[in-house]
Amino acid sequence: MSTLGHTLDLTADVVALTRALVDLPSESGEEARLADAVEAALATLPHLTVERIGNSVVARTDLGHPERILIAGHLDTVPAAGNLPSLLRGDLLYGLGACDMKGGVAVALRLAATVPEPTRDLTYVFYECEEVEGERNGLGRIAAVRPELLNADLAILMEPSDAGVEAGCQGVLMADITVRGERAHTARAWRGVNAAHRAGAVLQRLADHTPERVVIDGLEYREGLNAVAVRAGVAGNVVPDECVITINSRFAPSRSAAEAETYVRDLFPEDEYEVDVTEVVPGALPGLDRHAVASLVRVLGATPRPKLGWTDVARFAALGTPALNYGPGDPVLAHTAGEYVPVAQLRACEERLTRWLRRAGR
Amino acid sequence: MSTLGHTLDLTADVVALTRALVDLPSESGEEARLADAVEAALATLPHLTVERIGNSVVARTDLGHPERILIAGHLDTVPAAGNLPSLLRGDLLYGLGACDMKGGVAVALRLAATVPEPTRDLTYVFYECEEVEGERNGLGRIAAVRPELLNADLAILMEPSDAGVEAGCQGVLMADITVRGERAHTARAWRGVNAAHRAGAVLQRLADHTPERVVIDGLEYREGLNAVAVRAGVAGNVVPDECVITINSRFAPSRSAAEAETYVRDLFPEDEYEVDVTEVVPGALPGLDRHAVASLVRVLGATPRPKLGWTDVARFAALGTPALNYGPGDPVLAHTAGEYVPVAQLRACEERLTRWLRRAGR
Repeated sequence: MSTLGHTLDLTADVVALTRALVDLPSESGEEARLADAVEAALATLPHLTVERIGNSVVARTDLGHPERILIAGHLDTVPAAGNLPSLLRGDLLYGLGACDMKGGVAVALRLAATVPEPTRDLTYVFYECEEVEGERNGLGRIAAVRPELLNADLAILMEPSDAGVEAGCQGVLMADITVRGERAHTARAWRGVNAAHRAGAVLQRLADHTPERVVIDGLEYREGLNAVAVRAGVAGNVVPDECVITINSRFAPSRSAAEAETYVRDLFPEDEYEVDVTEVVPGALPGLDRHAVASLVRVLGATPRPKLGWTDVARFAALGTPALNYGPGDPVLAHTAGEYVPVAQLRACEERLTRWLRRAGR
Repeated sequence: MSTLGHTLDLTADVVALTRALVDLPSESGEEARLADAVEAALATLPHLTVERIGNSVVARTDLGHPERILIAGHLDTVPAAGNLPSLLRGDLLYGLGACDMKGGVAVALRLAATVPEPTRDLTYVFYECEEVEGERNGLGRIAAVRPELLNADLAILMEPSDAGVEAGCQGVLMADITVRGERAHTARAWRGVNAAHRAGAVLQRLADHTPERVVIDGLEYREGLNAVAVRAGVAGNVVPDECVITINSRFAPSRSAAEAETYVRDLFPEDEYEVDVTEVVPGALPGLDRHAVASLVRVLGATPRPKLGWTDVARFAALGTPALNYGPGDPVLAHTAGEYVPVAQLRACEERLTRWLRRAGR
């Protein structure tokens, strides 16, 4: 721990704590000071065993309960955008990471400090590098070096979900579709084959494609298939011999990675197109039929919604652990310069989770 | 003139002279040394009046003939591509600019030196900056400051045309077609409008379009309409709100600039698309029906072909002067690292033009 470390007062109310977290910048890769402060604050709590892995901090109770709940939040934020320090304006707390997701981290830290005898055992995970490439993700690092620390019957990811339950998440597939042609001078274009012209059929196929709506546990996962980039061009007087279309597919969590890939390859058969799948990560089923999830949803009194983006709940799904998103803040505001978190949502999330963790389990 | 100037021996044969020109590098903007050498060599010829305008050199006879022929070649080349110094291999002379167009310049310099009493008055123009943006073009600069120097009954541009006559040239139009949409996160793509998908219709329309073939004076000008660049993309998880397609139109010299623009705008009506015409330069009619052109073509014994690219003949057309391309070298080799000029073509061009210039006019 840094000797110049900031201190976090976990007895402060959740709004003050969120502000303190926002005012301690922690862009991805620069989480050390915040991790130091979180580790130091948790280390003062006798009911928790604290471990540090890189710039991630894991704190656990060990009360011998039959059920274990994991509560997780990432410490990092996207880069600042003139939105520091924090600013409280009426009921809204503005500032970098206020929404994504220092509000959720503050709620989790408050639970750690104020619920010393929960009715289920708890594992808190505060982790690094969620906003950057997957290999650097703190949860992934813990899963690699100390997987047993992530064992749980249910994981609650405190990603912004408007203080509602967002269950499961969609999968993501990225692919490059390359259309080839033959270069020629535009004054003699008939000697070549224009790859950009040929790409028109690919884009038209995407325009004509109707994404499916898949219902799971009563939740509708609306899929998507989009060209997110198109690149062609050699010079102003040259017929381009290559056009690359990057597509982003969001697929329902009921599809496996392989099924998602087959879906795209069926649309763009390899005898016509070169399809290079550059990334495919499956989603996470909502798991509303699992006991632990159903019980929490009941207590929170929230009607679950489907999570359409991809979040780290999918990492838990891959470990066989049901997981859901539940945190303060509107997910649409994430990564915007004007992001904020409503004070009422901070308090509601803290209050409801506290109540649930003190209520008799099962 | 530079005191360190290179000298050009105009009594040397056309192959040696071409090599000397190639070995005096003159990338666009760096023509001063070559212009110095050309000016100095022409200044020794008593039958010529020499003027320097920037790094362009104009040399004229004034014999009182009723007809004046202008013979022009640009001094500059594209940047070197490991193709210096010159290399004679069998009948082919390799090196930067050998084809485009120091071979043609060498032929013109030989005519200037060896035909002191032509049967028509002659204006030789050796000019700068043909290979770069139009505003820097040496011919354009002369037209702006000393337009009378370009007066002629016929202009012969010694651009590579395989020692054949390439008559007229096509016009060029460049335009950006912008297709708009609405940005959205790909997880909620239905909230947006994908501009790349909408661009599919533009590319499809280009793919379906059949360019016209326009016959003028018996020559077929085959038009072209091509997407030369396509650009769309905000981020991997964002539905793009803009797709820009750059198109290059090659149009027959019988169309005016305004007609060429109307043609494109009719294909992409403004209630559907934003069309920004960024450049439009009309072509040049072949003018085979003009007396001066017909006479030269007859003497050269070449069957005229249509010029499909755009060349500076269009600048003469704009001045009302018929013009054609006639020079050694395969135009397809222009701007390639392996460009060369056949020795036989150098000699053929010199010999035929010399004969014509010594033959009784009219």
